[in-house]
Amino acid sequence: MTAQTAPDIAMIRAAQARIGGRLRRTPLLWSPGLDAIAGRRVLVKAESLQLTGSFKARGGWSAISALTPEARAAGVLAFSSGNHAQGVAYAAREHGIPAVILMPRDAPEAKVENTRALGAEVVLFDRATDDRDALGAALAQERGLTLVRPFDDPQVIAGQGTAGLEIAEQAAEAGVREADVLVCCGGGGLTSGVALALEAEAPGMRVHPVEPEGFDDAARSLASGRIERNARLTGSICDAIITPEPGQVTFPILKRLCHPGLVVSDTEAMAAMAAAFRHLRLVLEPGGAVALAAALFRPEAVTGEAVICLASGGNVDARRFAEAITRG
Amino acid sequence: MTAQTAPDIAMIRAAQARIGGRLRRTPLLWSPGLDAIAGRRVLVKAESLQLTGSFKARGGWSAISALTPEARAAGVLAFSSGNHAQGVAYAAREHGIPAVILMPRDAPEAKVENTRALGAEVVLFDRATDDRDALGAALAQERGLTLVRPFDDPQVIAGQGTAGLEIAEQAAEAGVREADVLVCCGGGGLTSGVALALEAEAPGMRVHPVEPEGFDDAARSLASGRIERNARLTGSICDAIITPEPGQVTFPILKRLCHPGLVVSDTEAMAAMAAAFRHLRLVLEPGGAVALAAALFRPEAVTGEAVICLASGGNVDARRFAEAITRG
Repeated sequence: MTAQTAPDIAMIRAAQARIGGRLRRTPLLWSPGLDAIAGRRVLVKAESLQLTGSFKARGGWSAISALTPEARAAGVLAFSSGNHAQGVAYAAREHGIPAVILMPRDAPEAKVENTRALGAEVVLFDRATDDRDALGAALAQERGLTLVRPFDDPQVIAGQGTAGLEIAEQAAEAGVREADVLVCCGGGGLTSGVALALEAEAPGMRVHPVEPEGFDDAARSLASGRIERNARLTGSICDAIITPEPGQVTFPILKRLCHPGLVVSDTEAMAAMAAAFRHLRLVLEPGGAVALAAALFRPEAVTGEAVICLASGGNVDARRFAEAITRG
Repeated sequence: MTAQTAPDIAMIRAAQARIGGRLRRTPLLWSPGLDAIAGRRVLVKAESLQLTGSFKARGGWSAISALTPEARAAGVLAFSSGNHAQGVAYAAREHGIPAVILMPRDAPEAKVENTRALGAEVVLFDRATDDRDALGAALAQERGLTLVRPFDDPQVIAGQGTAGLEIAEQAAEAGVREADVLVCCGGGGLTSGVALALEAEAPGMRVHPVEPEGFDDAARSLASGRIERNARLTGSICDAIITPEPGQVTFPILKRLCHPGLVVSDTEAMAAMAAAFRHLRLVLEPGGAVALAAALFRPEAVTGEAVICLASGGNVDARRFAEAITRG
């Protein structure tokens, strides 16, 4: 496991250098139609177009490429039924190393298939009867695997921060040097990484996490000044960004750089998916659309002439997507 | 109107210089999942992510920026109920000049709205009782407007060809120097422009038009060696690429560089939309998906280790898109 040093801009730049051209520099998109809804310029960083369909490939690549050659050769382990699983599996495959992904037995078959299609070994566990952590620890010890955490790891945060370096450059090219930057937030890996990158590269930017109603642990933690937990972990359509609480590594960064957090409803997330479909021809998953939802439907929470939204992912079930775009 | 000189690579490069950074350099995307379906590498040039949601903004920009200052100041005229309308309207707005778009009175309200939202004046005509061409000619004369044709104009073809210059560069970056390049084809403006660009910049590429079954005027014209008409002009879901016949300017280029044409069914176009949704998180319209459909479902018509598909647009009704992605 990576040592728990605090991530910083040097680590983000180093992660960017290790990634090189092997992942995508995703586009920063806009459209007159979105600007009209929001009443200001809206710039969308489309991480849904990243390889594997979310920003998670950045963190996975950063963590794997930072391992010692011996640790890397032995392989990596991740717990995830979603975007992190695919990000780690892809990065492992591209490094030519084994990846073992622990997934709950009741995970959607499509997610299991997608992860296997990327070459990972999927180990299923039973949520009710198996101890996931013990199972993972046993596998890790037996095979010498290194755990890649979904967010609370400095090298993972550094990898996610590379999206922030790109935002700084692309926003400057678009003539935007001051803006609120809204980031879809689960455990805070992406939000904290982007905040560190922009603190160094674009100090006129103010980063804020955006979460779904009822799962606003980051917003409440920022308000109280200490880590607050969500009361429940199921019941949102924004499954990709539901976590129990901000991380031990991510929260100090959020607290220093990202006050306050914003919150949107599931209905607003679905409406943002419809707007991204129509105006940007992008496929966003519900959790990947909350930042755009805040930009479009909470204009009073944003200041300035432009707002930047990080659209974190596009791995969404066809029926859910069809519902979002046809309900209006 | 632009003089009917044959378009060439110099005109394409000049169009690229006039466009500068004002339109998008759209990404060339791929995914392991598409490669697995096709049995070879599949690279998708995502013009659905172009401003206005299709490549048509390129041709509109090229034509408008090539006008004399006097002609430009007077404004432009276009006949279209679809992507060409939006492309011309956007380019006119960005040049600060008037655009008049003639649309049939029974055009979908959303398309009329989208075109008006881009600042164009929409003039509606009745398909049964009005003479569209006479109406356009009268408006053009009265106001000094220049007609921007949808495809049979050298400057429009040169503008569409800028997508080919980008493909040459991006494919080389991806390590691909020899491939079939499949292009969604209506009147042939995009196909011929891309073919001219690749002839000069990437001579290992072989360009082919792709059309929907029953509307394969380009494929039949290439087979017979002379311009063939479609028997009908309605009844395909691929409305964006239905034209009566190849153009007088485009066909000689198609004939020299793009033999043979490929044809796919509407069902295959819908399946390609679903594949682009799932594997690339892209929104494609039916007519914008026929090239990808050929790459995925007609592998015997393609040679080599990689195939490049131009996904020409993403302006699709929500219900149609929902149907495509949920029918599988």
